[in-house]
Amino acid sequence: MIRRDFHRMLLSATALALLPLRGFSQRRGRQLRVNGERLNRLMRELREFGKTPAGGVSRVAYSDADIAARAYIMDRMREAGLSIRVDTAGNILGRREGREPLPPLLMGSHIDSVPDGGAYDGNVGSLGALEAAWTLADNDVTTRHPIEVVIFQNEEGAVVGSEAMGGTLDVSELDRVSQSGVTIGEGMQRLGGDPDRLHEAVRPAGTIAAYLELHIEQGGFLERDAVDIGVVEGIVGIRWWDVTVDGFANHAGTTPMDQRRDALLAGAKFVQAVNRIITSTPGRQVGTVGRIEALPGAPNVIPGQVQLSLEIRDLDAAKIGRLFERIRAEAGVIEDDTGTKIGFTDKVEIVPAPTDPRIRNVIDEVATALGLTHQRMPSGAGHDAQSIAPVAPIGMMFIPSVGGISHSPKEFSEPQDIMNGANVLLNTLLRLDDMRL
Amino acid sequence: MIRRDFHRMLLSATALALLPLRGFSQRRGRQLRVNGERLNRLMRELREFGKTPAGGVSRVAYSDADIAARAYIMDRMREAGLSIRVDTAGNILGRREGREPLPPLLMGSHIDSVPDGGAYDGNVGSLGALEAAWTLADNDVTTRHPIEVVIFQNEEGAVVGSEAMGGTLDVSELDRVSQSGVTIGEGMQRLGGDPDRLHEAVRPAGTIAAYLELHIEQGGFLERDAVDIGVVEGIVGIRWWDVTVDGFANHAGTTPMDQRRDALLAGAKFVQAVNRIITSTPGRQVGTVGRIEALPGAPNVIPGQVQLSLEIRDLDAAKIGRLFERIRAEAGVIEDDTGTKIGFTDKVEIVPAPTDPRIRNVIDEVATALGLTHQRMPSGAGHDAQSIAPVAPIGMMFIPSVGGISHSPKEFSEPQDIMNGANVLLNTLLRLDDMRL
Repeated sequence: MIRRDFHRMLLSATALALLPLRGFSQRRGRQLRVNGERLNRLMRELREFGKTPAGGVSRVAYSDADIAARAYIMDRMREAGLSIRVDTAGNILGRREGREPLPPLLMGSHIDSVPDGGAYDGNVGSLGALEAAWTLADNDVTTRHPIEVVIFQNEEGAVVGSEAMGGTLDVSELDRVSQSGVTIGEGMQRLGGDPDRLHEAVRPAGTIAAYLELHIEQGGFLERDAVDIGVVEGIVGIRWWDVTVDGFANHAGTTPMDQRRDALLAGAKFVQAVNRIITSTPGRQVGTVGRIEALPGAPNVIPGQVQLSLEIRDLDAAKIGRLFERIRAEAGVIEDDTGTKIGFTDKVEIVPAPTDPRIRNVIDEVATALGLTHQRMPSGAGHDAQSIAPVAPIGMMFIPSVGGISHSPKEFSEPQDIMNGANVLLNTLLRLDDMRL
Repeated sequence: MIRRDFHRMLLSATALALLPLRGFSQRRGRQLRVNGERLNRLMRELREFGKTPAGGVSRVAYSDADIAARAYIMDRMREAGLSIRVDTAGNILGRREGREPLPPLLMGSHIDSVPDGGAYDGNVGSLGALEAAWTLADNDVTTRHPIEVVIFQNEEGAVVGSEAMGGTLDVSELDRVSQSGVTIGEGMQRLGGDPDRLHEAVRPAGTIAAYLELHIEQGGFLERDAVDIGVVEGIVGIRWWDVTVDGFANHAGTTPMDQRRDALLAGAKFVQAVNRIITSTPGRQVGTVGRIEALPGAPNVIPGQVQLSLEIRDLDAAKIGRLFERIRAEAGVIEDDTGTKIGFTDKVEIVPAPTDPRIRNVIDEVATALGLTHQRMPSGAGHDAQSIAPVAPIGMMFIPSVGGISHSPKEFSEPQDIMNGANVLLNTLLRLDDMRL
């Protein structure tokens, strides 16, 4: 079981005073605009790295395509006047200096993909951040805080670079074999990092003023409701259990129906119970059984054991716990009905990572000022922002994702929406720069 | 799809007149008894071939253990005065000549096992038949019909030798790789058969007077109800379908519950519907979902497809068809409820093989004469007898199987029950010998 409750403890310590300073800059009235044409050209160029015949992108972390795409990004960062370094975890940081000796405002995302994935997940936030910094250079704007554009390594497999920065990457992860076939540690070296000096990549609480991430929604709400910007309330917590149903395997021909202890019949009741309990409770929680196997798994043998997964997500960790207890109680009823035993093993617990309430308000204001419609929403998917939450206030904004399709070659967001998102990111950054962080 | 409806067509042609002859032999009054001590010694000796550390038997067809056990059986057949031949399919036949020029009475079973199986399935019927023939030799009884003790090859993988004899083994089966790693054709050669002359193993209708098979029940009824002998009404028909549920795979975190087309939720409803329909209909039919897989099968992805198996068994083929139609109609309701599509592919259809009603009556009478309790019952498992049904009247008798456990090292039948079964087999054979077959 992986338990990640660091940021719950730390958040109170980092609840920095985001109070507006008197004497707002001249930018309060008018909004700076990114170069949408350039941003969408960058999107087209970046998708060439690892492009698949289906029009998607296979650019798993540490692959040749990933390394080539990182070189492309660093070239563009140089064009944008950023000074580049790769931290010991292999994250790329492009820095633009500020006027005052303050911790930097960080913004970015990732450019690695799942195998046979799409060209928008991660790319929009990475290039949106680069474009925002480039726009500052184009307009000769020097902010109070330094600005850092970050490209986190290996978000998809999972949030490795950002956890290294947040200080929560377990060193045992370095030995885990990644999608590209090399270990995480070997991958870091391929990216120019140094796993032996991993601690140098950690950014302690207080050393980042705030972290902002633009991302595609990966759900269908914004597109369906024709809303321009999703203002993320937080990244949901996830708990995942392995569930084992033990019955008794027997001959499907000779065992009468009333003498069976059919683990799959019990498993089927369990799957339905999960759905019923999750959907009959008010709220936006989700519960999923994604994996199931019956053993021995022959058409002519009554299943003696069924193994399945249970995953529950919600912004409220206590609610996840209450839902699980209801499911466990229902499992007891199923045990009695079917003569089986149902056991649960905790596998993963990721506590919710709420965004900073004051940053949410700034995003709302910026979207309104830009004439964009906006809506509060949770993020059901994980993001690098959750790894930074332990050490800094975070904010996230979503743009519509057509059909809610993600991790697929069919992933698509409109160029106009990508530009809108980058404009919200840029102007949120500028308003935060004016605040006491 | 394998369709086996030959014996339905043929049975009427082979519904031979099993009318009792006038002038019953002197054996009608007293029952001949087998040598129970010898029979149970043979059981102990045979289980040494392929014995596993758990006390079971791994003696898959064509393995070295199988071949050694066959040599052991042939030695014992010689001791019992039987003349031995191996047919071109690799079945062992031990013959004792009769007084009249009649087709032989056949009795036997198999000695191959499933991997990590038990020492009773097949062995009881094989050694029971050998012991019955041996008892005839001990008592200098010469029957009217010739007697043939048959050890069918590869019953477990499945009914290969008996199908060859019944004329229903498809030649494509010769190329199928068996549990032992060699093809069926290669296996036949290892046993002394000749796959190129397979047709010579076929026994046309009318060339076998009757076939009798003693077997363990492989269910728990006889033991539970303390009944000595099961009089088998027939071997159930089996239909097996592959079932595919198509939904839509999506992100478990970002897809709200009311927008899912979850193939596993539909699959779970289907498993329950099968159970409900099978159990709510009067009768002894069974229905089983033994295999299930959700794709892609990750805890954090809503299953887009579920593949499962459906098997229904009953003595009445028409009833199997009616039950399937009810299940298919219910699947339509599930499709509408869950936004999925459920498709069925016919995989196997084995029509029921009823035993000859007059042989059932003879078994009843013999058991009563021996002071044994008996009960009519279907066979839910397949047996070699079903392959002989197309060409000859068949009869089967069961003995109790402790706990109904089979295909397991825990398989066990009491020595007394084994002896009882052999006595019923012997005396049924003698009564049939007196009848006009």
